[in-house]
Amino acid sequence: MEWNNIPEFYIVLVEPKYGGNIGAVARSMANFDFKNLYLINPCDLDGDCYARAMHAQDILNDAKIFSSFDEAIINLDFLVATSSIESKTDKRHLRLPLNLFDFCNKIFETEGNVGLIFGREDYGLFNEEIAKCDIMVRIPTSSTYSSMNLSHAVTVVLFFLFLNINKINSKKRMLDRIEKEKLFSFFSELLDSIDYPEHKKENTNVMFKRLMGRAMPSKWEYHTFMGVLSGSIKKIKGNKK
Amino acid sequence: MEWNNIPEFYIVLVEPKYGGNIGAVARSMANFDFKNLYLINPCDLDGDCYARAMHAQDILNDAKIFSSFDEAIINLDFLVATSSIESKTDKRHLRLPLNLFDFCNKIFETEGNVGLIFGREDYGLFNEEIAKCDIMVRIPTSSTYSSMNLSHAVTVVLFFLFLNINKINSKKRMLDRIEKEKLFSFFSELLDSIDYPEHKKENTNVMFKRLMGRAMPSKWEYHTFMGVLSGSIKKIKGNKK
Repeated sequence: MEWNNIPEFYIVLVEPKYGGNIGAVARSMANFDFKNLYLINPCDLDGDCYARAMHAQDILNDAKIFSSFDEAIINLDFLVATSSIESKTDKRHLRLPLNLFDFCNKIFETEGNVGLIFGREDYGLFNEEIAKCDIMVRIPTSSTYSSMNLSHAVTVVLFFLFLNINKINSKKRMLDRIEKEKLFSFFSELLDSIDYPEHKKENTNVMFKRLMGRAMPSKWEYHTFMGVLSGSIKKIKGNKK
Repeated sequence: MEWNNIPEFYIVLVEPKYGGNIGAVARSMANFDFKNLYLINPCDLDGDCYARAMHAQDILNDAKIFSSFDEAIINLDFLVATSSIESKTDKRHLRLPLNLFDFCNKIFETEGNVGLIFGREDYGLFNEEIAKCDIMVRIPTSSTYSSMNLSHAVTVVLFFLFLNINKINSKKRMLDRIEKEKLFSFFSELLDSIDYPEHKKENTNVMFKRLMGRAMPSKWEYHTFMGVLSGSIKKIKGNKK
């Protein structure tokens, strides 16, 4: 997978009211390798803000502050409105959202500067702001309480983008074929050594194979477990002599 | 869509230090339809806590408070340690984690009470607490700043589970606490019976616990595997006489 043309993301907070939320957003940005923070008419970046940013002070210091929505978006090529709320008003056409998955699949087909726009803690985004965005993304939430904390909403969206950017190199800790065969043959040998009922052997060997398939042992676990199996076999055979 | 056999989730916060974080966790729980909050030696549930919980006051009011880790987990069948930090110490065996995707795929194959354990804001979970858990799940984060805010970490995990609960229609297996303890004690007895080196015993027992945690044996697999273990032990001891 080639990521040469990953768009540049800008996290845009519209009129955030609590410094703590801004700080928490900055921390989350650092957790997921985002760095561009735009603030539109924010509250003071107070002590609480800096405290909650933890090791993301640079992001706060480098944040760009704008006095209007229009001013903030001049530099941005593609605007993404976010919301966890499902609108039930007649303005639905404005808010017809992409879900987060489709969004994450699509956004990497774009280039340039992408603004992720997060609304006010209380009122979210106004309709005229949503109208200026290219798409709307909805974060799925409970039907009984959908309104998320601002930094939580940012966290979920950035986490999803982060996963996609890194395209999940879920570290392969697979054993190779020879190791696996050795493991299974030792287990089978153990069954033999304890005079395991002949008619149950095959199923039990398969069961063990399944268990190990799901457990996906690391190399270290493999060697340790092999040690226990071979130790048991040796003990049983040695005793028999 | 079947909802019958989804495990019951318990969000367990170990010694949280800030009321605001607890409140934020409660709000996030409500956003994703979770209700059971366990608190181990928490700070005061102060005004900040209730303010940040917003419409999730009930979750705070119903939260159960415990004075020790062991007391909190009595009721729980399967314990999931969470972390966003990658361990580079020699305690790796303790911390070899499942990624969030594999975890979400597997956890719905279980039944019973599942505890999602989140550590302290500063020190996370202690090794002896992690050792008591069945699996460890790592939240993927930046390699340069991996430490997440507590409520953000909870949010990401619950969001993932929420997405999966809305997809799930599978059910089944899961050992209860007593079965698991029997399994682990048989394995430990096997180590004793083969004169396994004393200084390696603890790590090897933990390794086995981790393997089984990831493999999540069915009842049938459990009984079959118990048969092999007890057969081996009997053989070794019988031979010794």
